[in-house]
Amino acid sequence: MNKLLIVGTVAFDAIETPFGKTDKILGGAGTYIGLSAAFFNLQSAIVSVVGDDFPQEYLDLLTERNIDISGLEVVNGGKTFFWSGRYHNDLNSRDTLDTQLNVLADFQPKVPEDYKNADVVMLGNLHPLVQSSVLDQLESKPKLVVLDTMNFWMDCALPELLDVIKRVDVITINDEEARQLSGEYSLVKAAAKIHAMGPEFVVIKKGEHGALLFHGNQVFFAPALPLEEVFDPTGAGDTFAGGFAGFIAQSENVSFENMKNAIIYGSNLASFCVEKFGTERMVSLDKQEVVSRLKQFKSLTQFDIEL
Amino acid sequence: MNKLLIVGTVAFDAIETPFGKTDKILGGAGTYIGLSAAFFNLQSAIVSVVGDDFPQEYLDLLTERNIDISGLEVVNGGKTFFWSGRYHNDLNSRDTLDTQLNVLADFQPKVPEDYKNADVVMLGNLHPLVQSSVLDQLESKPKLVVLDTMNFWMDCALPELLDVIKRVDVITINDEEARQLSGEYSLVKAAAKIHAMGPEFVVIKKGEHGALLFHGNQVFFAPALPLEEVFDPTGAGDTFAGGFAGFIAQSENVSFENMKNAIIYGSNLASFCVEKFGTERMVSLDKQEVVSRLKQFKSLTQFDIEL
Repeated sequence: MNKLLIVGTVAFDAIETPFGKTDKILGGAGTYIGLSAAFFNLQSAIVSVVGDDFPQEYLDLLTERNIDISGLEVVNGGKTFFWSGRYHNDLNSRDTLDTQLNVLADFQPKVPEDYKNADVVMLGNLHPLVQSSVLDQLESKPKLVVLDTMNFWMDCALPELLDVIKRVDVITINDEEARQLSGEYSLVKAAAKIHAMGPEFVVIKKGEHGALLFHGNQVFFAPALPLEEVFDPTGAGDTFAGGFAGFIAQSENVSFENMKNAIIYGSNLASFCVEKFGTERMVSLDKQEVVSRLKQFKSLTQFDIEL
Repeated sequence: MNKLLIVGTVAFDAIETPFGKTDKILGGAGTYIGLSAAFFNLQSAIVSVVGDDFPQEYLDLLTERNIDISGLEVVNGGKTFFWSGRYHNDLNSRDTLDTQLNVLADFQPKVPEDYKNADVVMLGNLHPLVQSSVLDQLESKPKLVVLDTMNFWMDCALPELLDVIKRVDVITINDEEARQLSGEYSLVKAAAKIHAMGPEFVVIKKGEHGALLFHGNQVFFAPALPLEEVFDPTGAGDTFAGGFAGFIAQSENVSFENMKNAIIYGSNLASFCVEKFGTERMVSLDKQEVVSRLKQFKSLTQFDIEL
């Protein structure tokens, strides 16, 4: 089985949407990526950090899914990273109400020995120096390195971000962030400029409007599944990235054609994530539901014009 | 050959975009629909009205494409409908600068005898009473009636609009208008409510984010082609509708599966329309370019996950 190495936050979230609010619940990019990638046939490990306030049941939830947490440091006397946010009525935008870095402030990632030869590396949204540090610890070149990031790092750590972007094969980024990073409004032009920064593949996430995959002059588009109700968008982008990286790790194929499938798997898993608060839906999801919804993606997008 | 009957404005437009501005140029929903449908193997006629200020060269442009203009009334001493608008920087929204109804104010559509048995009827955006009047004049039931409308009629002629919506098979409408008409934010729920108003098929246009086709519990999505530059969005929705109706008229097949293809043809033609000001690109477009870009649509959307 191929190995997927994941770095990303493991955190507490408190979320408000028009449909309700939660207390502190399980969250974090690393968590969503791990839960999503667990739907594929692979070995995975999460490199992250939590405080000793982090409940055993959340750790169990990861290990029950065969996620190696030997690289998940538990800081004695430390508090787990906490984020709180409120979504606007359209669910397309949100305000951050509170961010407490806590143990994340001094996080030094440690890649488990077993994963220094990982086949695929998924660098979840974190400080670019943490992302670079993970790459520095690898002992062999992975088949694929995927990086997710956000506008916050463009604002406050751009040189470090550009350094790590140079080192990855795939970047996943949302549309507004792609525009900010490239200075181009057109997403086609933005992708071309981001290519030139290093990544051979550029994935632009457009939330409810789907995702674009750019590779040279080639482009592929995966829609988001039209849903009756989006309940909570938290973690959808990370779930997408986890599905993408997980499918690539399982299939051992980094061609553009196979990445199309990976984008569909990512969109498919993200479509479940938004149906309930936090990780709730991903935890209850089974493989049969995933396959059944993939059929919906096919009928949603496939047509038979003969040319 | 099957007959496509088109009703819609034939007009002068003056357009400002971030890339430049035009004097009075050829515009109008009927014009864009007609130019787009002319790429298919069919007979078509436009029912509309202009003043005697409307240049012969514009009439010639339509007849050269085998569009029957015997139902295009020329009012002696009348002035042609004029619209002027300015697009915002993102090209997703615009301000209307001027609207002069002129001869459109008293327009009584007259369907040519030859088209009273049309196979497909495309009711372009116009007063719902005008759209109803066209249906009243038909002598046989068409295979398909498609209606396009806009928020303006929801604001000022809602009962008349609901009356004509009851009588059509397909409605094409943009996302904000679908929300306004249904009172639902979710497009899935909006489509269900609009179905219940009469149309068996609901097409929701999302501009640069593509278009959705709903039919019962089935849904299909066509993306907009990612373009380096969108120059002028004027007429894109009408061009989309013209491609949709034109393909259906040519293929004589009103199944959901075939409508998927029609949506792709519509998106394909609309992707050309926005590349230049007004009708310029549609006038220079040839069939080989259309086929070549359809191949791009295939590689943009088709994937091969086996289930």
